[in-house]
Amino acid sequence: MNHNYIKPDNWSIIEEGFDAKRVKSSESLMSIGNGAMGQRANFEEHYSGETFQGSYVAGVYYPDKTRVGWWKNGYPEYFAKVLNAPNWIGINVTINGEQLDLAKCEKVEHFRRELNMKEGWLSRSFTATLQNFIEIKVETKRFLSLEIDEVGAIEYNVTPLNNDAQIDFIPYLDNGITNEDSNWDDKFWDVLSVNHDDDQAFIVSKTMKTHFYVCTSMQTQVSLNGKALKQDKVVSDAIDKIEFTYKNQVSKGDTITMTKFGGYTADRNHDKNELITAAKKTLKTVSQMGFDGLLETQKEAWAKIWDMADISIDGDVAAQQGIRFNIFHLNQTYLGKDTRLNIGPKGFTGEKYGGSTYWDTEAYCIPFYMATKDQNVAKSLLEYRYNHLDKAIENAQKLGFTNGAALYPMVTMNGEECHNEWEITFEEIHRNGAIAFAIFNYYRYTGDYSYIPEKGLEVLIGIARFWHQRATFSTAKNKYVILGVTGPNEYENNVNNNWYTNYIAQWCIQYALETIEKVKEGFNDDYTRVKGKTQITDSELDQWKAVADNMYFPFSEEKNVYLQQDGFLDKELITVADLPKASRPINQKWSWDRILRSPYIKQADILQGMYFFEDDFSTEELERHFDFYEPFTVHESSLSPCVHSIQAAKLGRMEQAYEFYLRTSRLDLDDYNHEVEEGLHITSMAGTWMSIVEGFGGMRVTNDMLSFEPKIPNEWDSYSFKINFRNQILKVNVTKNGTKFQLDGDHQIDIMVKGEKVTISPNNLVTV
Amino acid sequence: MNHNYIKPDNWSIIEEGFDAKRVKSSESLMSIGNGAMGQRANFEEHYSGETFQGSYVAGVYYPDKTRVGWWKNGYPEYFAKVLNAPNWIGINVTINGEQLDLAKCEKVEHFRRELNMKEGWLSRSFTATLQNFIEIKVETKRFLSLEIDEVGAIEYNVTPLNNDAQIDFIPYLDNGITNEDSNWDDKFWDVLSVNHDDDQAFIVSKTMKTHFYVCTSMQTQVSLNGKALKQDKVVSDAIDKIEFTYKNQVSKGDTITMTKFGGYTADRNHDKNELITAAKKTLKTVSQMGFDGLLETQKEAWAKIWDMADISIDGDVAAQQGIRFNIFHLNQTYLGKDTRLNIGPKGFTGEKYGGSTYWDTEAYCIPFYMATKDQNVAKSLLEYRYNHLDKAIENAQKLGFTNGAALYPMVTMNGEECHNEWEITFEEIHRNGAIAFAIFNYYRYTGDYSYIPEKGLEVLIGIARFWHQRATFSTAKNKYVILGVTGPNEYENNVNNNWYTNYIAQWCIQYALETIEKVKEGFNDDYTRVKGKTQITDSELDQWKAVADNMYFPFSEEKNVYLQQDGFLDKELITVADLPKASRPINQKWSWDRILRSPYIKQADILQGMYFFEDDFSTEELERHFDFYEPFTVHESSLSPCVHSIQAAKLGRMEQAYEFYLRTSRLDLDDYNHEVEEGLHITSMAGTWMSIVEGFGGMRVTNDMLSFEPKIPNEWDSYSFKINFRNQILKVNVTKNGTKFQLDGDHQIDIMVKGEKVTISPNNLVTV
Repeated sequence: MNHNYIKPDNWSIIEEGFDAKRVKSSESLMSIGNGAMGQRANFEEHYSGETFQGSYVAGVYYPDKTRVGWWKNGYPEYFAKVLNAPNWIGINVTINGEQLDLAKCEKVEHFRRELNMKEGWLSRSFTATLQNFIEIKVETKRFLSLEIDEVGAIEYNVTPLNNDAQIDFIPYLDNGITNEDSNWDDKFWDVLSVNHDDDQAFIVSKTMKTHFYVCTSMQTQVSLNGKALKQDKVVSDAIDKIEFTYKNQVSKGDTITMTKFGGYTADRNHDKNELITAAKKTLKTVSQMGFDGLLETQKEAWAKIWDMADISIDGDVAAQQGIRFNIFHLNQTYLGKDTRLNIGPKGFTGEKYGGSTYWDTEAYCIPFYMATKDQNVAKSLLEYRYNHLDKAIENAQKLGFTNGAALYPMVTMNGEECHNEWEITFEEIHRNGAIAFAIFNYYRYTGDYSYIPEKGLEVLIGIARFWHQRATFSTAKNKYVILGVTGPNEYENNVNNNWYTNYIAQWCIQYALETIEKVKEGFNDDYTRVKGKTQITDSELDQWKAVADNMYFPFSEEKNVYLQQDGFLDKELITVADLPKASRPINQKWSWDRILRSPYIKQADILQGMYFFEDDFSTEELERHFDFYEPFTVHESSLSPCVHSIQAAKLGRMEQAYEFYLRTSRLDLDDYNHEVEEGLHITSMAGTWMSIVEGFGGMRVTNDMLSFEPKIPNEWDSYSFKINFRNQILKVNVTKNGTKFQLDGDHQIDIMVKGEKVTISPNNLVTV
Repeated sequence: MNHNYIKPDNWSIIEEGFDAKRVKSSESLMSIGNGAMGQRANFEEHYSGETFQGSYVAGVYYPDKTRVGWWKNGYPEYFAKVLNAPNWIGINVTINGEQLDLAKCEKVEHFRRELNMKEGWLSRSFTATLQNFIEIKVETKRFLSLEIDEVGAIEYNVTPLNNDAQIDFIPYLDNGITNEDSNWDDKFWDVLSVNHDDDQAFIVSKTMKTHFYVCTSMQTQVSLNGKALKQDKVVSDAIDKIEFTYKNQVSKGDTITMTKFGGYTADRNHDKNELITAAKKTLKTVSQMGFDGLLETQKEAWAKIWDMADISIDGDVAAQQGIRFNIFHLNQTYLGKDTRLNIGPKGFTGEKYGGSTYWDTEAYCIPFYMATKDQNVAKSLLEYRYNHLDKAIENAQKLGFTNGAALYPMVTMNGEECHNEWEITFEEIHRNGAIAFAIFNYYRYTGDYSYIPEKGLEVLIGIARFWHQRATFSTAKNKYVILGVTGPNEYENNVNNNWYTNYIAQWCIQYALETIEKVKEGFNDDYTRVKGKTQITDSELDQWKAVADNMYFPFSEEKNVYLQQDGFLDKELITVADLPKASRPINQKWSWDRILRSPYIKQADILQGMYFFEDDFSTEELERHFDFYEPFTVHESSLSPCVHSIQAAKLGRMEQAYEFYLRTSRLDLDDYNHEVEEGLHITSMAGTWMSIVEGFGGMRVTNDMLSFEPKIPNEWDSYSFKINFRNQILKVNVTKNGTKFQLDGDHQIDIMVKGEKVTISPNNLVTV
């Protein structure tokens, strides 16, 4: 836990006082990003204390071929490492020749950092007394532009407080970086050129193996008391680094400023021979706008995002700060502008997990993006999978499946599987289900059926074929079984008949069959095209149906619950409450075999299924399963508390729902899982949004109609959110006394509130 | 399969005709070793075709820290790589300036290689026409001395056949080697010095991370028509290589010879600053003996080994060649001289598997070494584990076990776990059972109880404690269960209640309890010491007993067999006979998940248990389980066919037993598993020995008495083997008409033959 060192604030993440032990945590929490690149909140100046230096460019990765142990046939070719990119933010500072280093100062006072989420910038200020007893005040501000997403800007101010001083700025670009997660400090970049031109510098390098070309660039300017100086500098370049040295004599009380623009131009967006030209053009544009001018565009861009996506909570600063922190980081990670990108589980804040695309996108993120952006953003996320269908079919072929069966990768950058643990890549196959579910969910929410006949149907057929082939018939059970899987609860590996997996497999087949019928009837041209392409036959469909109709689900008569998997009841069923504190988190305290044979659940598994398919289960059934499984759930996956919050709210257990809400919304802020130093949990942040909108707000879409079951935690006075529903904006404000609805659009809609139909007309406030 | 390219021969492995496609296979098959070092049968001269260069020094390894995927808490620190050692055998040859390279000659004829197992040497001869049309005859002989085990010797003869020619020899030492199994051609050695002194050269290097110091050395001598020449040479050294060039004008028909001695002195046996001195001393000794003198000692040493260990088979050359091939390689790998060493599964023939010590040693090798060597050799192997007990306790602690519970590593070099796949290291815990079983087996066979009170008891207590803690109580089953294991059949991972594991766990506890009682009664001083050290209490022993008494064993009433694990009958039970040929070996054709959910068994599992504990099961029970499980067994572990051969022989199914015998004895010679290029399966070779002695011979020891149930395959006229039984040598000769016994010793013994007691007096041939 972070022991609440982050100040409660509605709009900002604020740290006060310098504590070296918190540096890595704060670097994660205050990460900044703009969808195209991102970076941890590393100091600009040299810091010799413990730090995790990290800058990342979207879509640039490294295929680590590392093999250990006894290689399994069918293993993916590589593990995609999120690749630490060259450092452009560096500005070393010397004061009378002594390097400024917060780990080595005599004294650091008034240290304050602020990540301003409303406007999208990061600031830092402190006074430091160096070992040479010069006292200085430092104030910095930094942001990555949403407007021009290849660039960021830094303003770095130093004021000598007790003496005149020579204050040198040494801004640099450094390609000598390694990955935090590399085994032996391996290098992943080949530097091709190091250049400079006036106050600009450029390093062009390419990633090893994947051959992504990236130009890292900077432009620097020194000012005194706000007035730009025309100044000589010393240039020094090495094989993978270039630095400018600006020497400045500064009088006591005067402020010397380094303004630095920098960032990346990559061959994902430019001809690889034009990267420097592109960088020059960008630098020219932003230097003409100036730091303040660019900052203005930043504020406007964030205002626009917040106008649609904000959730406000009155009466509970911690809760308010939590949800905004989540919404802010989601928008820093993915904005839907580049359809080749997706939502990495750590965004641009760390390297863990590798890859960028998990089932998290479909299971957690799509609802958030559907409701807070133009619906094309969600459609792009669906198309991303459609574009990878051929690779998913190839992936399934590698594992021995045939006839166009598709297994989407567990982790991917480009459609290929790029993780490499057998129990995950080969066995955590439920991911296929979430991808099909997202197609259903997109249509349910947006009413836009066009995607299905055009593209979605092919995906559904590939997925249904996979499940049909993956299930096997058990003579002993006289049912179809699915053996050897890892369910959403990754604290079980290679189990038989994971209830969630079997359920979603059955659903996928049923939904594919139903969709084939519907497309056949309503979109015959598409049907003919898809039938031609996929060669589905009636007899194949009959075989699918046989599997779906005869799927096995483990059930305990004694406990009257579905079993998470075969054999669950053989475990020592000691609840989490009776587990010694010293054993938690179990993923840091226990060896893997102990975790596997324990009953402890990392994240919602059966409850996740009952969330997706809630109409198939009575509230009483949900309650029974909640009461049976939640006590064994350690919530050590970031994806767990949100679903539990939603389910608890549905069951009217508002205290528990609120506790889970805090846990999901402040997971990183309060570091529940003791790992925030490694980066943030980006995808689960969309689950936090769901906890409020679907959990407390009880929002659902049924038969093309929005419905709500508004509830409010005791601790809150009110909360509000907006959703884009079919291109109209509905604002919902829930108070203890009732719920207000306001529609921004051009036609009235009917909604259900607590089971009653309510008509909402544009711009007409309705209170229920 | 090798398509029988190895000629049938009673005593040699012979290849005739050069075929580049067979080079890597033959390199494995004709590997030579002397227990302290070993090497693949690489050519001395340059070879540009496909080859797997491999030299290995016993006990010298590298700790690969490579991590992939999501690291699991409790993982071992490293994966021990068997380390490719500097090449000392190299002798490049140029003929009129053209490098001899069998891959590039105009013509290669009369190519013949022979691994002479009787005398322990490797020879090669061929005539080659080079691109410059010079025709030469080459004859080489090489061996690694058993007598002086830091050195090997090569005689390399070249005769120009159609012209006078300049024939240059360039013998060298090369430290620029990499591991075949490395991910990125990583280097694992730091070269410290490259020296020469007269006709001797030395490279001293140390392994990275583990810091083993090794001096690789050579001494060279040129002779013409058998007469040593005093000759100038050119020395050329590089950072990791040194070579001598001897230029020779050779007349047509004359023979020029390079005699090269070389090998390794290592700081495992010498002061690290004295390695060159030690090498010089060794080289001096052997050069004084000369190639022929040293070869004489080799022949004598092998004659001594064969005198005791040979099994002769009349009437079946393939079978004869197979068993001698197995006995030969076992003796090349481990001779029991160095108690810090053990029997690596690939010996000195390849790198796969890493590490040196597996449960193979206890389960397969100890019976062979007990019967064919002084019984101290087997005792040393037991002591090896006793010496590692503290590390086994540490290893168990890392996984959360307490109170002195010991989990021996799955793979080790020094007592630490040095493999790194969770399903193996954390879950293949049955290995602990084999280690306890070997203690029982050693006493049963040798009658030497002294080891148990002195050392074995502590091991048994540590192991019993592990099983007691590892089992958990299932309320649902009202029994103790063992969840999340990998049994001997490694084609199942993380299963519950593997029958073999549960059975051996129960047995370990029972045997430990019984042994504690026995030591208490008979060796009270030892008992008091061990009780003091281990702090065992009566109540702890009662807890153990409760686990053993209430162990769960999965059983199918319907099939009337024990189940290999929970849920086995849910699989699609298609027998191997009905599996398409194209699917095999499944470990090369199928992805891991497919293997795991299939019913296919890599190696004996329940049948392995019924082998160890045969007295607990009726023949009818064995037969039922054999008939149920063998049809699902793919025998893709080298350890499978031997146990099946023994069990088939016991069931009187001699044809099947013979088939399995051929499969185990010629596994590598005939390359059943399509992988002999990677190296040989050394430890399973001891299983081949058991197939004859325990399988066909039916040898057992019960109540201090040897018993036999001699059978003979139809294809054989007779077979003979010798065993050292309690320091007397019994020779057994089985024919179709009866069995002859002859005792070399000082007192008569009673044995059982087919259930009848027979008395054998020294030097008195008895036929039964």
